[in-house]
Amino acid sequence: MHCLKLSLAVFLSIAVDISTNAQSAAKSLTEQLGYPPNAKLLIVHADDLGVTHSVNAASIKALESGSVNSASIMVPCPWFPEIADYAKSHPEMDFGLHLTLTSERIYIRWGPVASADKVRSLLDENSYFHHDWTPATKIDPHEVEIELRAQIERAYAMGVRPTHLDSHQYRLESTGKELFEVALRLAHEYKLPFFVTRDWFADFPYLEKSLGPEDVVIDHTITIEPTVLPAKWPDFYRNAIRNMQPGVNELVIHLAYDDAEMHAATRERDTWGAAWRQRDFDFFTGPDFRKLLQDQQITLVTWRQIANRTQHK
Amino acid sequence: MHCLKLSLAVFLSIAVDISTNAQSAAKSLTEQLGYPPNAKLLIVHADDLGVTHSVNAASIKALESGSVNSASIMVPCPWFPEIADYAKSHPEMDFGLHLTLTSERIYIRWGPVASADKVRSLLDENSYFHHDWTPATKIDPHEVEIELRAQIERAYAMGVRPTHLDSHQYRLESTGKELFEVALRLAHEYKLPFFVTRDWFADFPYLEKSLGPEDVVIDHTITIEPTVLPAKWPDFYRNAIRNMQPGVNELVIHLAYDDAEMHAATRERDTWGAAWRQRDFDFFTGPDFRKLLQDQQITLVTWRQIANRTQHK
Repeated sequence: MHCLKLSLAVFLSIAVDISTNAQSAAKSLTEQLGYPPNAKLLIVHADDLGVTHSVNAASIKALESGSVNSASIMVPCPWFPEIADYAKSHPEMDFGLHLTLTSERIYIRWGPVASADKVRSLLDENSYFHHDWTPATKIDPHEVEIELRAQIERAYAMGVRPTHLDSHQYRLESTGKELFEVALRLAHEYKLPFFVTRDWFADFPYLEKSLGPEDVVIDHTITIEPTVLPAKWPDFYRNAIRNMQPGVNELVIHLAYDDAEMHAATRERDTWGAAWRQRDFDFFTGPDFRKLLQDQQITLVTWRQIANRTQHK
Repeated sequence: MHCLKLSLAVFLSIAVDISTNAQSAAKSLTEQLGYPPNAKLLIVHADDLGVTHSVNAASIKALESGSVNSASIMVPCPWFPEIADYAKSHPEMDFGLHLTLTSERIYIRWGPVASADKVRSLLDENSYFHHDWTPATKIDPHEVEIELRAQIERAYAMGVRPTHLDSHQYRLESTGKELFEVALRLAHEYKLPFFVTRDWFADFPYLEKSLGPEDVVIDHTITIEPTVLPAKWPDFYRNAIRNMQPGVNELVIHLAYDDAEMHAATRERDTWGAAWRQRDFDFFTGPDFRKLLQDQQITLVTWRQIANRTQHK
């Protein structure tokens, strides 16, 4: 009897373990974060920190106001030292690295962190990152890895403790399996989640194939597009928030002030320009946004929470 | 008799040649420029173009107002493309290259144009140019030459046609004979005058020793120093202009607006900071300066005139 009771206890214990594991294997990212499956979770994420002082100042202001709760930093850019200094002295903030391989402006430009001779396929004839990638631009994945490792190493060396990685202009997700796997390899090496959403799986099937069971997949992402007229900016965001799906969502925004510096930096085109970024700043630091989140019962989450979620999936 | 006349003509011709050469060998730079020996000539020269948009915008405004008539550009800096584009479309302007080997700010920084691995002695642990040079900083003159050639080549490639070369923070004049001779070698190679003034000969005797007969020597230079109180700024410049000596003078000034970008870029110290540069801008674009030049019978000259002066010295 004693023996039977023990055996039963062991059996029950094993059964519970199996059951727990079976359940948790199916756990969504939302559940792993400790929320019910139908919760609406949101990362409000500012991109491009480090490009200009204007971007840094507006993004810091928005982060400190509490509505924007995550951001990522471009290490090769001139104002990286300013935001690195801020990140170092605000370790509670949710800063990732916005891995950068292009220099898409005209009047302000940047080049590699790695030694130029080691990453020539990433550079134009003046040793800046290419303005854009065309089918004729032959990017060497090995050089991408060298450059991205140099960016991550400089960030750590200057006191940034990133909570995640993502990719400027989505180059690492949208250019092919090889570059995506470079990003994943670095994410694994540095034990940082890399931003991928299942919204992209249809267009880029290699994403899902390359991902392993330990990789994070954000359920949905929202970002405003050039087709939205400036006057319709608040409407776009209000609708996006009202229609937000359950799961983990990332709202990707671009903050700056429409000041002399930002105007000059982006004056060759309106897209993601100074006025665009001021509109984003105005909406996300205004009263509408916070109230909408409350009305829609949307909960803000960070990449730090995602990185630190239970590993018992 | 015929023969004698010919011989006399030849003799006279030779004598005139010798006499002209003997006279012109003693010609001052002022005379080479076509002015009487006691003329007061002045280059009003703005430094540091390319560092920020604020520096570019204020310097362009001052150049276009006509009081400031020369400037030099820092090729490794983030806003170099903006000023290169302006220089390319304003070939009449007097732009030099402000050869740069340091990155002396904290919140905005820059690194080499050359491949980092080829110029390691110039770089700190994060691959920016050193913040400062101390006796412990071992600068390799060969690497200086590699980097400076890369800066000059990028400038030409992006459409700048420099009229002269000078040196950011006077590093190339004040660090020793070896670096000065690198600068001279490049000046000769690119057939550009390099800014040296005889005011520095006492402190750096190697300057005079290294200079050849073809090299330009500016008679005097004037620049404001941190010891001048902000309220005394106009007095300093008024006195400097009233006391200006005959010969070719270069007034080295630093222009920018005291705006958000410039304030952020220079906020760690007041010297050569945003307010400093706004004071320079206000004085040199104000009415006092032009009137003073007239009253003192000072004539503005450019580096282009110096570069194109008669070679029959």
